[in-house]
Amino acid sequence: MTEPIDEKWINKKVSRRDILKLTGVGAAGVAIGATSLGGVIKAMGSDVFEPVADSTRAINKVDFYGKYQSGITTPVQTNIYFASLDVLFTSKKDLQELFQKWTPLVERLMNGELMVDLTTNTRIPTGDTGEAAGMDVANLSITIGVGPSLFDKLGISHLKPAELKDLPHFPKDQLQKEFTGGDICIQACADDPQVAFHAVRNLVRAASGKVEIKWSQAGFNSFPADGGTPRNLFAFKDGTVNPTITDEKDLNKVVWVDKGWLKDGTYLVARKIQMHLETWDRTSLKDQEATFGRYRDSGAPFGKTKEFDDFDVEAKDSKGEYIMPDTSHVHLARKSGARILRRSYSYASGVMSNTGEHDAGLIFISFQKDPAQFTTVQNSLGRLDKMNEYITHRGSAVFACFPGVQKGSYLGEALFNAV
Amino acid sequence: MTEPIDEKWINKKVSRRDILKLTGVGAAGVAIGATSLGGVIKAMGSDVFEPVADSTRAINKVDFYGKYQSGITTPVQTNIYFASLDVLFTSKKDLQELFQKWTPLVERLMNGELMVDLTTNTRIPTGDTGEAAGMDVANLSITIGVGPSLFDKLGISHLKPAELKDLPHFPKDQLQKEFTGGDICIQACADDPQVAFHAVRNLVRAASGKVEIKWSQAGFNSFPADGGTPRNLFAFKDGTVNPTITDEKDLNKVVWVDKGWLKDGTYLVARKIQMHLETWDRTSLKDQEATFGRYRDSGAPFGKTKEFDDFDVEAKDSKGEYIMPDTSHVHLARKSGARILRRSYSYASGVMSNTGEHDAGLIFISFQKDPAQFTTVQNSLGRLDKMNEYITHRGSAVFACFPGVQKGSYLGEALFNAV
Repeated sequence: MTEPIDEKWINKKVSRRDILKLTGVGAAGVAIGATSLGGVIKAMGSDVFEPVADSTRAINKVDFYGKYQSGITTPVQTNIYFASLDVLFTSKKDLQELFQKWTPLVERLMNGELMVDLTTNTRIPTGDTGEAAGMDVANLSITIGVGPSLFDKLGISHLKPAELKDLPHFPKDQLQKEFTGGDICIQACADDPQVAFHAVRNLVRAASGKVEIKWSQAGFNSFPADGGTPRNLFAFKDGTVNPTITDEKDLNKVVWVDKGWLKDGTYLVARKIQMHLETWDRTSLKDQEATFGRYRDSGAPFGKTKEFDDFDVEAKDSKGEYIMPDTSHVHLARKSGARILRRSYSYASGVMSNTGEHDAGLIFISFQKDPAQFTTVQNSLGRLDKMNEYITHRGSAVFACFPGVQKGSYLGEALFNAV
Repeated sequence: MTEPIDEKWINKKVSRRDILKLTGVGAAGVAIGATSLGGVIKAMGSDVFEPVADSTRAINKVDFYGKYQSGITTPVQTNIYFASLDVLFTSKKDLQELFQKWTPLVERLMNGELMVDLTTNTRIPTGDTGEAAGMDVANLSITIGVGPSLFDKLGISHLKPAELKDLPHFPKDQLQKEFTGGDICIQACADDPQVAFHAVRNLVRAASGKVEIKWSQAGFNSFPADGGTPRNLFAFKDGTVNPTITDEKDLNKVVWVDKGWLKDGTYLVARKIQMHLETWDRTSLKDQEATFGRYRDSGAPFGKTKEFDDFDVEAKDSKGEYIMPDTSHVHLARKSGARILRRSYSYASGVMSNTGEHDAGLIFISFQKDPAQFTTVQNSLGRLDKMNEYITHRGSAVFACFPGVQKGSYLGEALFNAV
């Protein structure tokens, strides 16, 4: 745990432009009143000096404000840093203050600004850890959600949506508590790993004494040269059947919650799935493809030629056999009838200390308007899924991700207005 | 451990162009004789079919052939996958066969080709794990070296250079055996994490039953928008004082070995260094800068204004105090008089299970013509280095990296010709 850093310091939200605008009235001790951020900006302290460098980085930026949070239907970036946090407080008010504090910081991060602008006062810890200074913001998106355990801890179980509960145990689950659960999630995605990590590190630091990281996981997506669907570490294209991220009507069916304080929010399911690469690599291509129900090279479903060709899961060949094997991952997932928006990343670093195999796999993330959609798919896979031979689920968590933030509001405001 | 895969399969080296050229005489059962690869290519078996896809990926490629191996003076890429392997055999001949097998595979990987071309035979494990298919080769470099333990295992200690020995214990070292030592290293660097991982995974797979991974580490470098020196996770620019990678004369002084079978090779030192980010983040900027002896924002040495300004480590101010504190990292490193070529990467994923702090830091890699150069620097840092408060060395290894490969030769040939 880190010690709380100076509150005044971390809450300062003053850009070089603001300083220049304020020159006429003096930069020190001036309270910024009504702003676009709805009162969460506090008065500047007297230790604000002329910034020594412009804190604004070059921008390939994702909008912070909007109907929905970023990082859900945002085009998938190359890197993720996913963190599951536990809270160290027990009151709803503390939670509200946390989200009020985070809101302008998330906006700054997504704008490619430092958490606070640099000053010439070097006698205190810096307000921004600095490793993203001078870098492109790299399409950083930040998605915040709350887990079922949080509501119980804060004594607000009556506000917990019925859908928000720990996932059931699935056949073959081997969950480890160090990768499972959590009160709050931060999903930071960017086209640079340091930008994503910087976001999580600084949000956690800004909440020092209030939260601690329970578990976290970095991941990557590598895109083919033609910009198509990335391949996972089994070399199969991952995410082909997703809803189109611009198809609002379909997303309303699959992703966006349409009621209560979570309206225009969604549920995030995270699963840390180890992929047994050595076992997979000993398997013939034929068996690998039968495991997915798709061809590795093209990504086409069995019996078809192109990745996005539609298919009839019940279609049979002239011998009466399923064209897409009924133990294949795609067959079983489709047969469930449930749909989800997948937004997964691969991970690979190190070897398992007990077996020497690659410590590699998928940080599976999906968004859905009800976690039951994920549960339906997973139950359909059940014990039949041929994929079970090659993977082990090591971690699991579910979070309710707030709707987007409007100017003048803050993350999760609807929750705090609910009774 | 994985089981050996079909020898014939993995040794096949036949491109789409070759197949087309061979069409006139039939593609199956034709032995390719004299080639540019010096006899390491074996005859194609009878299960070679017409490729179903072109295996050549788009290329931002680094040359495989040359006086020196790639990945040493190659411009630093954004990603590394570093693996330290143990061998499972005990003869020099096995080692020679391994490097003869790897040589054309390393060339293929660096050319953006699959390990073997695709065929329509899907009843056997694929010769390439496939996750890099269709991707840019992303400036992949592959650097191979041998550790001191290897010579003892194979009974060829007389061939071990006097310089190649485990590093001494340094003050504050807390080495863990799961990140220390190894018989062979593969350093794969690329501007994509999946391309780097794919290279290591496939080389290890091709040597199944011959080697196993002892430890491995993924890492990243994130470049500022202006393309300058990347910042490490302490937010300081890392690698400023490196020799210029195009200054052959200087590199001959610092990096390239000039004698024996390792002539035109170099020594790689790898250190897994945990960086205690939470402690660092509680420290004032003033103290952080005094720890390095450089300004965080500009990277300039104390008393100077620009990153690459030279400095006199003994210079004092009007009060007789060192301008660059004599406990600073840069002061002590410079004072040692030794120089090395740093080529480090950051890592950040997960939290330490015992403390909950970030599991983050530096996979420090340096190249030098004698590991004693690193030892001299490290001994100079010793117990004085203010940095010691913020870092812990967790892993260590040293390898002799072969000279580059000429056409018709193979990795490490000079070692096998030595007596």
